[in-house]
Amino acid sequence: MLALGGSTATPPGALTAPVVEVQSLAEVEQLGRDRLAGKIVFFNRPMDPTFIRTNLAYRAAGDQRFRGPAQAARFGAVAALVRSLTFAADDVPHAGMTAFPPEVAPIPCAALGLQSADRLSAALRADPALRLVLTINARHLPDAPSCNVIGEIRGREAPDEILVVGGHLDSWDNTPGAHDDGAGVVQAMEVLRLFRALGLQPRHTLRCVIFTNEENGARGAAAYAAAAKERGEKHLLALESDAGGFTPRGFELGSAQGPVHERAAGQWRALFEPYGVSAFTPGSGGTDVAPLQAQGAIVGELVPDSQRYFDYHHAATDTLDHVNRRELELGAASLAALIWLVDTHGL
Amino acid sequence: MLALGGSTATPPGALTAPVVEVQSLAEVEQLGRDRLAGKIVFFNRPMDPTFIRTNLAYRAAGDQRFRGPAQAARFGAVAALVRSLTFAADDVPHAGMTAFPPEVAPIPCAALGLQSADRLSAALRADPALRLVLTINARHLPDAPSCNVIGEIRGREAPDEILVVGGHLDSWDNTPGAHDDGAGVVQAMEVLRLFRALGLQPRHTLRCVIFTNEENGARGAAAYAAAAKERGEKHLLALESDAGGFTPRGFELGSAQGPVHERAAGQWRALFEPYGVSAFTPGSGGTDVAPLQAQGAIVGELVPDSQRYFDYHHAATDTLDHVNRRELELGAASLAALIWLVDTHGL
Repeated sequence: MLALGGSTATPPGALTAPVVEVQSLAEVEQLGRDRLAGKIVFFNRPMDPTFIRTNLAYRAAGDQRFRGPAQAARFGAVAALVRSLTFAADDVPHAGMTAFPPEVAPIPCAALGLQSADRLSAALRADPALRLVLTINARHLPDAPSCNVIGEIRGREAPDEILVVGGHLDSWDNTPGAHDDGAGVVQAMEVLRLFRALGLQPRHTLRCVIFTNEENGARGAAAYAAAAKERGEKHLLALESDAGGFTPRGFELGSAQGPVHERAAGQWRALFEPYGVSAFTPGSGGTDVAPLQAQGAIVGELVPDSQRYFDYHHAATDTLDHVNRRELELGAASLAALIWLVDTHGL
Repeated sequence: MLALGGSTATPPGALTAPVVEVQSLAEVEQLGRDRLAGKIVFFNRPMDPTFIRTNLAYRAAGDQRFRGPAQAARFGAVAALVRSLTFAADDVPHAGMTAFPPEVAPIPCAALGLQSADRLSAALRADPALRLVLTINARHLPDAPSCNVIGEIRGREAPDEILVVGGHLDSWDNTPGAHDDGAGVVQAMEVLRLFRALGLQPRHTLRCVIFTNEENGARGAAAYAAAAKERGEKHLLALESDAGGFTPRGFELGSAQGPVHERAAGQWRALFEPYGVSAFTPGSGGTDVAPLQAQGAIVGELVPDSQRYFDYHHAATDTLDHVNRRELELGAASLAALIWLVDTHGL
């Protein structure tokens, strides 16, 4: 038995087939249909631990899960397995988005916990002809209605100009999603609570947006941006928290009007440094706020310490007991401080 | 039943007495012998969560555990209870050093988990006359021989000049001490392993010192410093890791020759910043390396992120599963990098 976690777009079913381990999508093409037809392709390239920021390690290994199964299908594979995108030394599967272009018929695919991936790899070295029995009961259900959840404090001077702080309400199907993105949701709400608790009436309208469907198409983000455009709302700033409730280290900021992260750093870095928040880097916002940049908003993300994020990301272990209250609070306070500065002084 | 953890210098035994809750040592003096004779004094001032660095919150509340029981004894109390020095929302007692000066006869004392402290406080508000049955079976055992554990890589140019990296082998009695200071021990050994793995032969002798008895008198540190002096060893640098195996944020450095942390920052901060290590602050070394400053050494400590440290400090929860491998490795690599720079370029 191996620890498996289904990905999206995976038709359920059971099959038995030989397994071919590969390290890359290019290797799939090199092996070709002759070697892969009727087989299960097992993508087993580990995340590279030498990246200091784990999201870069995730990105560098993520093609295996995102595009690997489609690549395997192109060359006749009947299923795909992917080594979980994690550094955790446990056997918990980490799943996530897997894409099949319209011209490729989806095949069953699943993520393997690291220990299971290592065991399968060892078993294949011992017996390259072994056949794997793969049973997947994940199903892709039809779409259903869902909503963004929005609350706001009306601005006292320019209520039609809006500052957004957000997170996303959904989580991957295999997890309660405490860090991804329960933390961001709580922090976004906490920003409004902090303004209230401190008796601060913002000049502009401060809006908390809890986006739906971030994980599976970002249609909450698209619907919010479309509604903003339709209603002629002017968004000055849209920040999100979607990288875990860990100790905050900085912000990524972007704007169609140029390197706004440098301006923020120049004006305010000294205010944040005593709190350990010092990295102001360029970015284009997280998934949920990114569409607002085209409407003139400065978009951005809270950047927390990344070391532990992929221990829990899209896995059953992303639970509340792995969230530290102080780290979570520091992130919310950092968001509130940046928003107060932009509200009060502009950026 | 309340969650209790014994402190040092606590005679075992059982007693039943009324309880008086106080918030400070000064309040003990204000209440005086009339109100406290024959009673159990319960120090219940929480750590102040508004400190960003948790060690400052610990220091600000620590007088209750360190000197509170002796203060209570001076005014006739028969025992003392202390709210655990932690932010963890659990009920695990956190113990630690408690001192009785020679003129004060020790009384039983123990730490209370936060939930137990809150329950006791609520029970006292409901019934100020309640009597507590206190049973303590902790004992202070006689001294026994122990050793520092030392390994080194001899220097290729100046083997008589020494760079020390260290941690401490002992832990508080109620805990395996994974962060305090298993992490430091592993990191100190890892520094030597990294030099070996990278084929770096240090110019000066690189010595890993695993100190004994840090928690209960620092006699390993004293013995090491005395031996160094007796043997005429010249220590250039002595670094320790004793603040948990969390993501490294910087270094504290001190020297009898002036503000060495500024010199280190000026020369090398830019090299560390890509790794998120940027705070070079003054310090006088940790407990184990501090005595070497008087012998001319630059002394210092690795400064990791402090948010989670007191969740586990001196408690049964300071276990390996709360140590993140990447965070631990980053700390070891940071120590190795600073030591290599000092070894190669001087400071």
